[in-house]
Amino acid sequence: MKVFIAGIDGYLGWALAQYMTHQGHDVAGVDLLLRRQWVAEVNSDSAIPIYSHGERVHAFQQHFNKPLDFRVGDLCDYDFVTKVLDDFRPDAIVHLGQMPSAPYSMIDQKHSVWTQVNNIVSNLNLLWAMREVVPDAHLVKLGTMGEYGQPNIDIPEGFFEVEFRGRKDYLPFPRQAGSWYHQSKVHDSHNTHFACKIWGLRATDIMQGVVFGTQFPGLGNDPRLRTRLDFDQCFGTAINRFCVQAVVNHPLTLFGAGTMRRGFLPLRDAMRCLTLAVENPAQKGEYRVFNQFAEAYSISELAYMTQEVGAELGLNVAVKHYDNPRTELEEHYYNPDRENLLKIGYTPSQDVKSEMRLMIEDLLAHKDHIQKYAHVLVPDIRWDGTRRKSAEIAPKT
Amino acid sequence: MKVFIAGIDGYLGWALAQYMTHQGHDVAGVDLLLRRQWVAEVNSDSAIPIYSHGERVHAFQQHFNKPLDFRVGDLCDYDFVTKVLDDFRPDAIVHLGQMPSAPYSMIDQKHSVWTQVNNIVSNLNLLWAMREVVPDAHLVKLGTMGEYGQPNIDIPEGFFEVEFRGRKDYLPFPRQAGSWYHQSKVHDSHNTHFACKIWGLRATDIMQGVVFGTQFPGLGNDPRLRTRLDFDQCFGTAINRFCVQAVVNHPLTLFGAGTMRRGFLPLRDAMRCLTLAVENPAQKGEYRVFNQFAEAYSISELAYMTQEVGAELGLNVAVKHYDNPRTELEEHYYNPDRENLLKIGYTPSQDVKSEMRLMIEDLLAHKDHIQKYAHVLVPDIRWDGTRRKSAEIAPKT
Repeated sequence: MKVFIAGIDGYLGWALAQYMTHQGHDVAGVDLLLRRQWVAEVNSDSAIPIYSHGERVHAFQQHFNKPLDFRVGDLCDYDFVTKVLDDFRPDAIVHLGQMPSAPYSMIDQKHSVWTQVNNIVSNLNLLWAMREVVPDAHLVKLGTMGEYGQPNIDIPEGFFEVEFRGRKDYLPFPRQAGSWYHQSKVHDSHNTHFACKIWGLRATDIMQGVVFGTQFPGLGNDPRLRTRLDFDQCFGTAINRFCVQAVVNHPLTLFGAGTMRRGFLPLRDAMRCLTLAVENPAQKGEYRVFNQFAEAYSISELAYMTQEVGAELGLNVAVKHYDNPRTELEEHYYNPDRENLLKIGYTPSQDVKSEMRLMIEDLLAHKDHIQKYAHVLVPDIRWDGTRRKSAEIAPKT
Repeated sequence: MKVFIAGIDGYLGWALAQYMTHQGHDVAGVDLLLRRQWVAEVNSDSAIPIYSHGERVHAFQQHFNKPLDFRVGDLCDYDFVTKVLDDFRPDAIVHLGQMPSAPYSMIDQKHSVWTQVNNIVSNLNLLWAMREVVPDAHLVKLGTMGEYGQPNIDIPEGFFEVEFRGRKDYLPFPRQAGSWYHQSKVHDSHNTHFACKIWGLRATDIMQGVVFGTQFPGLGNDPRLRTRLDFDQCFGTAINRFCVQAVVNHPLTLFGAGTMRRGFLPLRDAMRCLTLAVENPAQKGEYRVFNQFAEAYSISELAYMTQEVGAELGLNVAVKHYDNPRTELEEHYYNPDRENLLKIGYTPSQDVKSEMRLMIEDLLAHKDHIQKYAHVLVPDIRWDGTRRKSAEIAPKT
């Protein structure tokens, strides 16, 4: 199939370009290379060194022995979006091209407004361009499990049957997102659902858990093919950050009690799931939601698991609690469904420890590089709109 | 109380400035005067002539014998928003300053993107500016009953108790908005709820029905004090458009079967409700939702009521069906609550016919002016993204 990747330079996008090519698909994509700027703006860098867009394309062509149409441009520029879709005429569009960080969106007024405008406009432009240029293509759009927030009931996949005052309906599950970024994803979900309804577009909205890891099938040995791996407070997510902290001998930073539960999945599972979604498209006019994660864990379970894996590798890893910069429930019910992907062939990896081990081994080669950015390992962006470095706190007993 | 009106030049805003001043409050406001441009862009004009911003301020000062701080500026300009809030330091902010038309947002890619960006950014800026400058002020934000869409169950006021797989939670009611404009209002509601949660702001989110009418208590005799009244396909809403059509002897344009039900309220009730919301503020950190309408009617009930009132005034009014340019259910369940405003003193007007009669009498004085714009009375903006004038269709039997 012809697969267009919006955000092909990112953590998921660059990996997906290789994984799907390895699976026999034809890939093209666009990126404005903003992730590189954002990570620099927060004074950090990818733990695994990444290469320029030109070098990446060159390495891709050498490794896969086929060209890669990777264009640099802005999804907020509608003429650019219609032009690339018209040139490539994809069967599927995987939309990963957004600003993906909750803390970055919480920095101040400018960052919150920019995040919502950028994410909403890029998604709206893709919807309009699909209607105009490739109305039969299938949109696989990245959302996040964070759209649901922390309801005190099970989390279904996008929709649920409601009985209220004796009548029934099948309705979108209420969204209670916990950051300006997560809110932007909720807005995109609503807009995408509406476009399917009025224009007959087909879309799969992926509520993705937290992705971790550095490895996936199809990754070549060329260092230019490696995908980025962030560990700063904005773009580094829980397990990735813990493994980096383990490597540079920094205490693992548990926010608050660390009892918050989330769905997680290895990068290789994310690649597999996105590919399954592409290969099993939604019907015309259908807007469907997939919850995409392997298993749910509490953050502290994962920290202690990182500690164990570190010990096996001879690393002495401490786990410490820091005051939570976020406004969120630390003790909460969490029981999300994930049946839709299983139905089309996904078998969740349950071996988080092996994946952690592979990642830490990968990261050990870059210890000196990471060390230069150790100042980003403790957060200072707070949900109340202020900046203050989190302090170590005593764990609850 | 000191009440700041965002969108003070609009249909509701200019009326509210007078109504609340008449009720003894101190009013100030801002507007970018864009409504005047949008209506000109769709080749129409207010049925009741309106005066320039300067003439309005002058007439206000003469009539109420007090100055009016009415500034022209953009809510999307954050520095402007913080400056005016800091200068005025309001107790309440009534946010009416948005692009309010579903069809206008559906014209094309540019209009949909512009609508969502303008509405979301103006609302986000107000939230951030409140946090920074007047964190104890109360935001009364205009939403729309259209945020709920057409669920097959009762519509509560913003939240409902859900039982799902044996567990219960009190959750936001799912939103299923039916245009890019209505979606922008859903996004604003989500953002506003989140701001109350993280920053302790207080907000009342008004899910307003369709407003109609030209009269309200406190309106002076000076023609410069009259508020606008639109009748084009974008900015003219159902009853207002019907009364204008009755005056110029144009058939009343029922879309489709005309069996769609909506909540309606006279302009005077909207003024009363917004004032009650201001005078009974939400608690700190509270985000509450009021469904604001007097009664629910089907569109065809209102058309035939307009016909009756027209006949009493000697007008020969025809009712005709036109193919529906919108994607919506025509036959649907509709039973929204409206208890929260009753609890703080609202008594809904139930006399739609008297209000129609007052409006038609007002409009008859401007028949020649309206006649010049008769070309706008049949819609051509379609929900599928095309333009085609609706044709007359046979009514269903």
